[in-house]
Amino acid sequence: MAKKRPVRKTKPAKKLSKSIVGKDRQTLQALRQVADTVVKTATRSRPPHLDIPSRSLRNVRYNKSKRFIEMGKGTNRRELFNLSQAKAYMQTMLVASGCKQLIEQQKTTSIRGLYYLLKHTIEGTKEETFDDQSDCDPVIEDLEVLLSALREELHVYASNRGTLVGNLVLNDSGDQIDCSRMGSGGYSIPSIVEDDVVEFVRCDAEFVLHVEKDTVWRRFNEDKFWKEYNCILTHGQGQPPRGVRRLLYRLHNELGLPVYCLLDNDPWGYYIYSVIKQGSINLAYESKRMAIPDARFLGLRSKDYQRCELTPSVQIALSDNDIKRAKQIAEYPWFKHKRAWQKEIELMLKNGFKLEVEALISKDISYVTEVYVPERLEEGDYLD
Amino acid sequence: MAKKRPVRKTKPAKKLSKSIVGKDRQTLQALRQVADTVVKTATRSRPPHLDIPSRSLRNVRYNKSKRFIEMGKGTNRRELFNLSQAKAYMQTMLVASGCKQLIEQQKTTSIRGLYYLLKHTIEGTKEETFDDQSDCDPVIEDLEVLLSALREELHVYASNRGTLVGNLVLNDSGDQIDCSRMGSGGYSIPSIVEDDVVEFVRCDAEFVLHVEKDTVWRRFNEDKFWKEYNCILTHGQGQPPRGVRRLLYRLHNELGLPVYCLLDNDPWGYYIYSVIKQGSINLAYESKRMAIPDARFLGLRSKDYQRCELTPSVQIALSDNDIKRAKQIAEYPWFKHKRAWQKEIELMLKNGFKLEVEALISKDISYVTEVYVPERLEEGDYLD
Repeated sequence: MAKKRPVRKTKPAKKLSKSIVGKDRQTLQALRQVADTVVKTATRSRPPHLDIPSRSLRNVRYNKSKRFIEMGKGTNRRELFNLSQAKAYMQTMLVASGCKQLIEQQKTTSIRGLYYLLKHTIEGTKEETFDDQSDCDPVIEDLEVLLSALREELHVYASNRGTLVGNLVLNDSGDQIDCSRMGSGGYSIPSIVEDDVVEFVRCDAEFVLHVEKDTVWRRFNEDKFWKEYNCILTHGQGQPPRGVRRLLYRLHNELGLPVYCLLDNDPWGYYIYSVIKQGSINLAYESKRMAIPDARFLGLRSKDYQRCELTPSVQIALSDNDIKRAKQIAEYPWFKHKRAWQKEIELMLKNGFKLEVEALISKDISYVTEVYVPERLEEGDYLD
Repeated sequence: MAKKRPVRKTKPAKKLSKSIVGKDRQTLQALRQVADTVVKTATRSRPPHLDIPSRSLRNVRYNKSKRFIEMGKGTNRRELFNLSQAKAYMQTMLVASGCKQLIEQQKTTSIRGLYYLLKHTIEGTKEETFDDQSDCDPVIEDLEVLLSALREELHVYASNRGTLVGNLVLNDSGDQIDCSRMGSGGYSIPSIVEDDVVEFVRCDAEFVLHVEKDTVWRRFNEDKFWKEYNCILTHGQGQPPRGVRRLLYRLHNELGLPVYCLLDNDPWGYYIYSVIKQGSINLAYESKRMAIPDARFLGLRSKDYQRCELTPSVQIALSDNDIKRAKQIAEYPWFKHKRAWQKEIELMLKNGFKLEVEALISKDISYVTEVYVPERLEEGDYLD
């Protein structure tokens, strides 16, 4: 085998910061404004503080007309000259300065990276800026709500675990990518999919089929379902990460594609649908850029055990926790007044078992792509 | 937004099974041979049995000349007419028939999919073929060793969580993919990378840099390290899944590329390196197609805390379990007689802390791509 040592290339001169334009410029301005307010307060000899929108459950509500979860107007004041708040105040300013640095350098990092970037011993003390990651994460979320900026706009990314394939051509960071020619692996959906990174070039697809799991996605990809039915096929490896949710949102709103979800028949599947459709409680401040109130739940349905003539072998007994979760979900304001959803959840509880999408394999390995989904689409049989 | 219902395409006539060629034909023959032996034994009125290579620790050894872990010659007999073995015997034949079906249909599935494909109530009884997934998984491994076939050759895939970018053009399932033009997400490494699926078309890269985590990979990708140093950049999201290991193996052996690993300075990082290099104990039967004895450990090193002038903030204290694992790893036959490795592990224990690759961010967000790795490559400073 080759033993050659890699040749070290001549190092180019360090790139100067590209000029900051578009969304980044806006975010930078918002960050500067935070700093300016502090300076202004201080020069007036008033104690510096920040009013951070509250992310508690009490401050979250379902907006019926917008049909998604949103934050209320409650805020929490964080003061520098308050012994119990001084550290959190310092951390907020520190995270803000870290994000400013990232944007100015035109670089991005993970929440772990940001933590390391900012972690240090405070001069003249033995105090650390952050003791561990869990100290830093909520501060990032604080800053998101404070600036009304997505984490991605602050150049901090979440995980990268969704995949897409279909009749869509896009431009990702300067590379033109034809998502219909991506081999067996598909296009790996980045965490940051804002339009300065991912730009739609051409789309011939007519709808999006979003499935829960990688393994189901692969069945559809291997069977070339997206070619036959001219759709875009995505998955988010369980609960879809922010990049996947944001991309679905953009496909739906910018390209007008209906979004159909194929998820397990269990409380977790219902919950994933709920998050895609109405937003999540934790990230309520992002609903307006991520929630898709018109997303549709194609299956699996509680009635599928009968309808598809499945056998007892594929039943998975509901745990106590499943039952508890199912009842909670039935009480969600956006499910509570929908008879079809109430019946759906009731029937699962009555069945006493849940079903994974993979259960359909017991009929035939391609039953899900050749019969189940085509029939549901044909009949227009889905939950809303 | 668009409300149009997706148009259902005319269903094409069901495809006839493509003729089975190449590797699939070989695997099918091996599967048939297993069945033939049973028939032969039965027609001679002898009790049918299978001799399955033993996957126990006792039957695993380090082959010094090949420099990887391999299985010994021990086997376990599994008999149909033995009350305690009859079910396992049936399960083995069942998994074999499931794999035969997959190959004949030219389809693939996950271990979860195979489980559902084969799970049913045995006629006339209340007995299930498999009670749960954990019943099925070891039988798949049994079949792999019995047939000396990779799981992927049996059309069963593992997870799909590695990514690649670099100056490599490949053909994946008929699509030509230029891995240097994959946007921010990279090429998603499939679980099945055998040469009938993934074919190398052109490679201009000079080496492979394999990093542990997605987040580190993205730093290198964003900084276009692979362009500047003309390499292929991969990650395997922690311990690399089989597809990633197999692809690294092929890049190394077919294209002659040296493989450098950038992993955390902790027992888990050492272990990942050990698996890439010498194979894993669990999957010892796959070493000959996955282990890369010439892979090199570029870092992080225990001496990096001093060398890179890091600060106490980035230290993560070793847990008792870390210390135990480190001592075990120091005893691995392939590390035991290497002074450099003994010193490496001793120093970590003496330090009393571990370091993540991300710790280098505390120097500068791009220190790892602009200083750390270039210097190590320049100096040829790595562990073997």
